[in-house]
Amino acid sequence: MRTLLSGGVVVTCDQNWTVYTDGDVVLEDDLILYAGPRYDGEYDARVSAAGRIVMPGLINAHTHTPMTLFRGLADDVALRVFLEERVWPREIKLTNADAYAGSVLAATEMLKAGVTTYVDMYFFEDALVQAALDTGLRAVVTPGILEAPVWQPILGTWEQRTARVLAFCRQWDGHDGRIHTGLGPHAPYTLPLPALGEIAVEAQRAGLPLHIHLVETREEREAFAERGLGSTVSALEQLGVFEGAVLAAHCVWLDDGDAEVLRHHRVGVAHCPISNAKLGAGIAPAVALLAAGIPVGLGTDGAATNNSLDLWEELKVAPLLSKVAASDPTVLSALQALAMATRLGAMAIHQPRLGVLAEGYKADVLTLRLDDPAMVPLFGEQTYMDHLVYAAGRSLVDAVWVNGRQVVRNGMVLTVDEEATRHAAQRAAEAVSERVAR
Amino acid sequence: MRTLLSGGVVVTCDQNWTVYTDGDVVLEDDLILYAGPRYDGEYDARVSAAGRIVMPGLINAHTHTPMTLFRGLADDVALRVFLEERVWPREIKLTNADAYAGSVLAATEMLKAGVTTYVDMYFFEDALVQAALDTGLRAVVTPGILEAPVWQPILGTWEQRTARVLAFCRQWDGHDGRIHTGLGPHAPYTLPLPALGEIAVEAQRAGLPLHIHLVETREEREAFAERGLGSTVSALEQLGVFEGAVLAAHCVWLDDGDAEVLRHHRVGVAHCPISNAKLGAGIAPAVALLAAGIPVGLGTDGAATNNSLDLWEELKVAPLLSKVAASDPTVLSALQALAMATRLGAMAIHQPRLGVLAEGYKADVLTLRLDDPAMVPLFGEQTYMDHLVYAAGRSLVDAVWVNGRQVVRNGMVLTVDEEATRHAAQRAAEAVSERVAR
Repeated sequence: MRTLLSGGVVVTCDQNWTVYTDGDVVLEDDLILYAGPRYDGEYDARVSAAGRIVMPGLINAHTHTPMTLFRGLADDVALRVFLEERVWPREIKLTNADAYAGSVLAATEMLKAGVTTYVDMYFFEDALVQAALDTGLRAVVTPGILEAPVWQPILGTWEQRTARVLAFCRQWDGHDGRIHTGLGPHAPYTLPLPALGEIAVEAQRAGLPLHIHLVETREEREAFAERGLGSTVSALEQLGVFEGAVLAAHCVWLDDGDAEVLRHHRVGVAHCPISNAKLGAGIAPAVALLAAGIPVGLGTDGAATNNSLDLWEELKVAPLLSKVAASDPTVLSALQALAMATRLGAMAIHQPRLGVLAEGYKADVLTLRLDDPAMVPLFGEQTYMDHLVYAAGRSLVDAVWVNGRQVVRNGMVLTVDEEATRHAAQRAAEAVSERVAR
Repeated sequence: MRTLLSGGVVVTCDQNWTVYTDGDVVLEDDLILYAGPRYDGEYDARVSAAGRIVMPGLINAHTHTPMTLFRGLADDVALRVFLEERVWPREIKLTNADAYAGSVLAATEMLKAGVTTYVDMYFFEDALVQAALDTGLRAVVTPGILEAPVWQPILGTWEQRTARVLAFCRQWDGHDGRIHTGLGPHAPYTLPLPALGEIAVEAQRAGLPLHIHLVETREEREAFAERGLGSTVSALEQLGVFEGAVLAAHCVWLDDGDAEVLRHHRVGVAHCPISNAKLGAGIAPAVALLAAGIPVGLGTDGAATNNSLDLWEELKVAPLLSKVAASDPTVLSALQALAMATRLGAMAIHQPRLGVLAEGYKADVLTLRLDDPAMVPLFGEQTYMDHLVYAAGRSLVDAVWVNGRQVVRNGMVLTVDEEATRHAAQRAAEAVSERVAR
């Protein structure tokens, strides 16, 4: 099946930022066959992209999809209140069906915003994978592993949990060409350090990536330093954690020398500027990480700390925060932000065949309407990309393909009933509240 | 003419944050007649607001509408390059027709985002007022006054310019019940200080507000201090500038004691978090200003430094920046942000009959769709307001009334041809570029 997306402004997001202002993109099954000037080969179906930008689908490098059920429940409160009073009491009352309802809601929200791939860390991994399958997105599912008294009855010991997660990964990795898996050891402060080392060895043996929260808050960094172990990053390096593929979320409070360790081991970083700012955690040193050549992606984090899963907001807020932190409007340019949401994000999450419109890449594509006052005026190739970062928004997303399959048309999700999805999530959220109140 | 907006979630934005989850709002001519539980009086027309939030229209406290023509022309560059190389060479080549095209584009963009009132500082004031009249918004037009060699041939001396602006204000103030005027002395560094004092006296004599840029950058503050004049705010106070109604934009680099001066004189502040961050200028002390009881509104600033005129972005980014600056997630709450965009913004711009849904306020109203994944789940009154700040966006704006007249329906602007508006602005932007290149 060969589909021609014809006559759009093709923003490839390749290394050279090639733009074809009157270009074509051809999808063949799950791959991009062609991206360039007008195409004169054969095709089975044609979709006009006139008056639209055609670009790679956005990559959300860090989220927790079922947490959409907690959206708005913990705003403007300290992290301790957020966790201990609002979120944890609900999380331990979740069912697999609740997690599924929240995850489908999240995926629906992301699709409407043009996100085609997300990296998901949570429990209830069967629900996570089912939500990705049913909604049609590409997902990197990294089931959470942690050791905490409250979770022990549900997850067992970390060894038991790791064994279960490995079995899950063996079952699902590569499924349907769009389910990818990895291990999600939650954080260096929720697992014994030796356990982290052992989980990493298991992941490396299985050829799976590791997805971990890393130095999100100043308190976390200080508590670690007080244990006399130096920086968290150097301690994890010594444990061999970075020997395999790793995606580290946040990285707000890195120490001197940490960036060099991350660079040396090709660790990907998921920069979550909105979540970090909303929690008052800080501003990750994205400018320095990018300058060091570290692949940095953008993540929304969960909807309890953002509160939307709209990567267009991260695209704009990431430059704003880095510029104001540096007192310098020239740092973290629009092109760097766009790279983080596409090509660099793909490298950060260890999926290098995503994030670019070029032959051989995965057919994850979105089209975006230009018929909006916010997209005027246009002065050539650079302004298309500037407007994508500083002026566009989710309302302009028109059509989305994932792995070659169209999943959004005219801004509406084709794979799920949106109204039923909202109602199911609302019912699940209410049911959890009722269980907590009991 | 009495119009009933029936059966919506009425978020009044009054002092008590009253919400009627199944409420009605009645507009009578240009005023709100009723906002509360279901209304049993008579009416001429009924519009269902079921499944929608009904709230006051948003107030954009600081912008420069014709600068939409420069959107995307000066991103990621230093302020000096922005002004001297990109913007000024174009501004002096603008015509009245260009300014009108840019201003109509800006107003169209704002309407689609639910902005019902904006404060506009620019030249070409005849074009500004015509754009507001034609698009149907409420505008506070404050023609710019400055003394700069490049502008002198166009604007004359500051005395000539002030006289012309006063005549403009006398002609238009109060027109059609939705054109308001004021004087726009640009900044303390673009006018002689004595001139500022004299312009203020003229404004006070005429009963008009003053709209001025105030300590936007650190360089501005330092240059002023080097002249041995102390803080800009204290110098302006001594000149009597704050004796009348004043709206001060930015206020990023206030000195100790300045907030007390602003509070004492009931100066309104237009907080422009995105523009200030994008230019690397800093983060205004909004938390402290609010704590001091100063009315603070939200402004987008112009599209050359934002780059959209979407106040929903300010609603979310203002708390993010204040929280991260304070390392405290509890400061600048969702309710404070929402107040800045509505009730407090109205006080900041000296239009106290705006920004609240209650009897006797102006009939500036918007409805917002709840049938979106980002607005789920809902847990009662507080989450409606949390979601407005942290999860909603311009794509959810459904209908807008200004001064009792409906100007947006189903997200489409009723007052202008959107496509013609975009094309006119594109042509104007290109024509300016051609004139500059010559």
